[in-house]
Amino acid sequence: LNRIKASGLKLRFCTNETQATREKFVKKLQGMGFDISMAEVTAPAPAACRILKERSLRPHLLVHNDLVPEFAEVDKANPNCVVIGDAAENFTYANLNEAFRVLIGMEKPVLISLGRGRYYKETDGLKLDVGAYMKALEYACDVQAEVVGKPAKMFFESALAEMGVPPQQAIMIGDDIVNDVGGAQRCGMRALQVRTGKYRSVHTLHP
Amino acid sequence: LNRIKASGLKLRFCTNETQATREKFVKKLQGMGFDISMAEVTAPAPAACRILKERSLRPHLLVHNDLVPEFAEVDKANPNCVVIGDAAENFTYANLNEAFRVLIGMEKPVLISLGRGRYYKETDGLKLDVGAYMKALEYACDVQAEVVGKPAKMFFESALAEMGVPPQQAIMIGDDIVNDVGGAQRCGMRALQVRTGKYRSVHTLHP
Repeated sequence: LNRIKASGLKLRFCTNETQATREKFVKKLQGMGFDISMAEVTAPAPAACRILKERSLRPHLLVHNDLVPEFAEVDKANPNCVVIGDAAENFTYANLNEAFRVLIGMEKPVLISLGRGRYYKETDGLKLDVGAYMKALEYACDVQAEVVGKPAKMFFESALAEMGVPPQQAIMIGDDIVNDVGGAQRCGMRALQVRTGKYRSVHTLHP
Repeated sequence: LNRIKASGLKLRFCTNETQATREKFVKKLQGMGFDISMAEVTAPAPAACRILKERSLRPHLLVHNDLVPEFAEVDKANPNCVVIGDAAENFTYANLNEAFRVLIGMEKPVLISLGRGRYYKETDGLKLDVGAYMKALEYACDVQAEVVGKPAKMFFESALAEMGVPPQQAIMIGDDIVNDVGGAQRCGMRALQVRTGKYRSVHTLHP
């Protein structure tokens, strides 16, 4: 990372992290010794906020408590869409039913999902990721979610726009063959898969 | 119902009820004045039990507490499949993750779902039905659930077998255009939709 920065190449960190604000995320990485600032991070929640503003959408949020501050500026009264993220412990039976009721009550349900991960690993074991709950709401309401975050094309395009770089001149580096490599390639970028992180030689997880 | 019984026609009650045992279900209907006995009821849980036995499957159960007695005779040690029903309050974050972990830990995940309903109405509002949670697990584990209950062909076939009647000589009466009418017709039966219950003239719910 230091060598990339020293070389003068433009750099963005593209994360699907939706369990914390960018601020918290950046502080954690800084604490680990990484040279990173909030302005260098492209994350699903701020991207979703831009979409909400552009389309005058007022969200009902089903997200992690730590992510709520990212939506501080957004009007949430009388919701006309549902935004779902990796809500973790907030994925209760009551909260899922509530999000469902808001959605099914709309003439044309709008569901925005911060990622489409299947599952991920934590110290105490595998956990269902946002994609699973997204599928539950999609099926119940007969609606297709709009996914914000990797591997959505729009997500990579906004990172490129922020840097002012065309896709042909950018390379994506990541450990996820679908979200990182596949998403970037579909966007016209080259991509490089590292053999660390969640990389497995035989099969690949898709969180 | 009394006229059908008096006529000497054979009769089965086909229900997707999975929030209670057949015993409880029958008692409730008897209390409302219906002439009905447990032997006349075809329900998903007993059908699932037959499948489990035939294929030597030991289930991890994610079902309503009141349904657990239906699985009393089934070996549940060291599970090699997951059975999901309308677990209602048992659809907690912890229970969903546990069912997911059992499933993803199998070499070839087997998921049996007691119905594929999208949602249903209770006195305190709409609730997500088993189908939504089935979809979540299907997506997370990249597996297709085997659905027991209406509108599965096998479910109607077992009701017909219990009566000893070929499909051409049977008629299905119900309020659900997909689960009752569609399922029976695909099975070679004739079907009749009543305009009571969940019937709506404009659109049809699919619980």
